[in-house]
Amino acid sequence: MSGEGQVRVAIRRHAAGTARDDRDLVAAEEPLEIRLRAGGEERAVAITMRTPGADVELAAGFLFAEGVIRDPADVVAIHAAGEGPGGLGGGEGEGDAQGGGAGGENRVVVELAAERLPDLARLERHFVATSACGLCGRAGLDALLGAGHRPLPRGLTVPARTLVALPAALRREQDLFRSTGGLHAAARFTAEGELLALREDVGRHNALDKLLGGAFLAGRTPLAESIVLVSGRSSYEIVQKCLAAGVPVVAAVSAPSSLAVELAEAFRVTLVGFLRGEGFNVYAAPERIAL
Amino acid sequence: MSGEGQVRVAIRRHAAGTARDDRDLVAAEEPLEIRLRAGGEERAVAITMRTPGADVELAAGFLFAEGVIRDPADVVAIHAAGEGPGGLGGGEGEGDAQGGGAGGENRVVVELAAERLPDLARLERHFVATSACGLCGRAGLDALLGAGHRPLPRGLTVPARTLVALPAALRREQDLFRSTGGLHAAARFTAEGELLALREDVGRHNALDKLLGGAFLAGRTPLAESIVLVSGRSSYEIVQKCLAAGVPVVAAVSAPSSLAVELAEAFRVTLVGFLRGEGFNVYAAPERIAL
Repeated sequence: MSGEGQVRVAIRRHAAGTARDDRDLVAAEEPLEIRLRAGGEERAVAITMRTPGADVELAAGFLFAEGVIRDPADVVAIHAAGEGPGGLGGGEGEGDAQGGGAGGENRVVVELAAERLPDLARLERHFVATSACGLCGRAGLDALLGAGHRPLPRGLTVPARTLVALPAALRREQDLFRSTGGLHAAARFTAEGELLALREDVGRHNALDKLLGGAFLAGRTPLAESIVLVSGRSSYEIVQKCLAAGVPVVAAVSAPSSLAVELAEAFRVTLVGFLRGEGFNVYAAPERIAL
Repeated sequence: MSGEGQVRVAIRRHAAGTARDDRDLVAAEEPLEIRLRAGGEERAVAITMRTPGADVELAAGFLFAEGVIRDPADVVAIHAAGEGPGGLGGGEGEGDAQGGGAGGENRVVVELAAERLPDLARLERHFVATSACGLCGRAGLDALLGAGHRPLPRGLTVPARTLVALPAALRREQDLFRSTGGLHAAARFTAEGELLALREDVGRHNALDKLLGGAFLAGRTPLAESIVLVSGRSSYEIVQKCLAAGVPVVAAVSAPSSLAVELAEAFRVTLVGFLRGEGFNVYAAPERIAL
């Protein structure tokens, strides 16, 4: 092991027809079980392969994106197994980019204020449906509309020159922490381009859950004045999680999928892709970007 | 729409302080429901967000990797909803890189030879556990060992110069089909570096399920003489799916995760990362690579 989030391994390095034994750092990947507790009952609802660190935020962000919790008051406490009750207060450390929630154990228990566990049959279906890079049980946009989501208010405007500066800010912050080349990042910025928080994970969706979970626990959602940048591509789930958190501008370094574009259009989320160098494409709600 | 796998959308293109309206192609992303049928019963087991195309292979590959089906004889037929019974024979078209299984509908029914559906409680847990970019219910490597997986035989040797030629072959084949920049690819090669099949998807795991599902349906598993190359990173799940299919050499253009390395070491899967230019790193079982 070599610090949180990365692991040292023995490798054989091939280059130009030669090979030598060497050491390298790889991104840590371990299972995390997320459990719900309410009214004396407890049950596992998901197990995700994630990079250890910010586990409390990850669990909160996942449950928040799924609509299981909607307000910090819905949560009594979050325990990382093997530790005492953890962190609702952990969200206060949101600005300290890689902080919070690392436990030696791979289990987080979220204790709900509700008197009983949510309907687990429904929930199970839902979790099977939406887990990770894109299992999705909702029939589509109609279901989301039916679930009470509304298009985001127009409000925020972001200058194009602010957007083009974001990837460099994200890379600078990433370089401080990692050298594995194997971690996705999700970062939250002000409309002026100031980096507020950054989270990393082997899983793109986990990085975003950690980021938005931290903001949720700190009582900052909906994030009506924020820009979120993800290091990879934007899929349906990336946009859905940002929509749940009320983020009006979602940017990605790479391409969006068709359903990401459709969802962003339907709910007036400004969706930016191929944010590189001096340029980018806007796939939905371009009116929030000013020249 | 603009051909299978991609969708044309309206965008605003920003470059060097100017903006103009334009059109762009994005990777298609739509939900696919995978259903099992046996003994007159039928039930949904998973819904995945995928790029349409090779849906029959995707369903077969997913169920094969999960251990629900182990032999083509376990499957009576696979129906893409809205069409007639589809393709066990579809696997024969494995060599035709993007072929097979595209249906207008987003549902595939896999009819099992078994007299009843598998234990769905166990299955549900399992599916919650392993879906997509890394939900994993197995306690870890011990569980896999307990499930009867054994280290792969030493057998195959691959020259380093064969490996370094693979990414270019993959890119050439991809360029024939796509221009979205948003699709992951998984390809299968002979030990001599000949490309046998390539599948693409917005989801990395789906691309691999399509690839391995095609080989499974054609009766070609275990793939003891094959190299598999994935376009992105290698996680636990990438290695696990290749292990289930008996693939001895797994290569990725980017970094592996720590658990991918551990799993590959435990089961003697040769794991190659950062396969770019003239070099690469070998993270497990380097003895299969010859200078």
